[in-house]
Amino acid sequence: MTSTLSRDDINNMEQRYRANLINSLSGFKPAVLLGTTDGHTHNLAIVSSVVHIGANPPLLGMIMRPHSVQRDSLGNIKKSGFYTLNHVHTDWIDKAHQTSARYASDESEFVAVGLTPLITSSFPAPFVEESNIRIGMKVAQHFTLINDTEMVIGEILELHVDQKHVASDGYLDIEASMSACISGLDSYHSTTRLAQFEYAKPNLKPRRK
Amino acid sequence: MTSTLSRDDINNMEQRYRANLINSLSGFKPAVLLGTTDGHTHNLAIVSSVVHIGANPPLLGMIMRPHSVQRDSLGNIKKSGFYTLNHVHTDWIDKAHQTSARYASDESEFVAVGLTPLITSSFPAPFVEESNIRIGMKVAQHFTLINDTEMVIGEILELHVDQKHVASDGYLDIEASMSACISGLDSYHSTTRLAQFEYAKPNLKPRRK
Repeated sequence: MTSTLSRDDINNMEQRYRANLINSLSGFKPAVLLGTTDGHTHNLAIVSSVVHIGANPPLLGMIMRPHSVQRDSLGNIKKSGFYTLNHVHTDWIDKAHQTSARYASDESEFVAVGLTPLITSSFPAPFVEESNIRIGMKVAQHFTLINDTEMVIGEILELHVDQKHVASDGYLDIEASMSACISGLDSYHSTTRLAQFEYAKPNLKPRRK
Repeated sequence: MTSTLSRDDINNMEQRYRANLINSLSGFKPAVLLGTTDGHTHNLAIVSSVVHIGANPPLLGMIMRPHSVQRDSLGNIKKSGFYTLNHVHTDWIDKAHQTSARYASDESEFVAVGLTPLITSSFPAPFVEESNIRIGMKVAQHFTLINDTEMVIGEILELHVDQKHVASDGYLDIEASMSACISGLDSYHSTTRLAQFEYAKPNLKPRRK
């Protein structure tokens, strides 16, 4: 049985209560680690705001908070133009969550939480070695939104995947890769596939693949 | 064992293969039904691009494709300024997926797939009665992105939730509410909570709630 809350009800909530509730409303979110560097310190920050923008050219977006614990990562992205996105797996969610602590700017979250920076000759930002899905990104568009958060859209320059999880049609089985998802600010989940459906057509019932 | 794909490898992929692969990279996505109306026909469209923008004021964003099956919904949003977001539940993912079929503009997806429009006196767009988490939205910002997709940011005016799933700190248990998530273009998943963590601090190990 649902009850209805008005905007006034939301405005009158205690700040932390409102933050927890509203952060739950967007549904399940991807658990992704953002890797950046200032040339000396390798930064790592968990983000749950990655969103698909397009496949051709391959583009991903994310929402960043400039005055939060994300400020060092955002500063590195603005200066260098490069960053990595790395799927968080279900067996090290504790390390991923710990990157959200407010470490000093000259302290690497890789070291602090116990994850391994993977530095390659082809890409100027650190990947996470423990991740099976790693994406090398270059900033394509960057702007400020209505509430002073910032949206960064990047194009995919490089991709690391385990081919055994890629189906013949290109679908990457992120569940078999043990990718985790997030709800609210701090809840981590594994998934169970219910169904995969064929392309829907008006004159046909839903057909499972 | 991961292998590395370059941007050239991605550019050279067959179009459908690339679409499936790139759509998998953003990780798990929320399964949400977008409700709109032109005053006569109630439209319903599945979207997997909803993203949290902010809690105060309460804002959600989504990415829309103007030349896709989403064009009627986007047109309704532009004309009226109002829309609803309704969580898809794991026991009717087939109906939710079927809304992605290209129905005629004067045909209601509610009727076509067998979901019930919930029309209230307080809100000018149709909710989905079968959903336990319904959000009434008003457009706050709207713009075109680098690849001609459109981003719609809306403020939350009204919220329907089952209070039994709201924790004392405001966290809404969307898993207990049976909200589904999506990977790629057509795979639907349920979730299992692994852990909920306390606010992370540099000098403390991750602590489970």
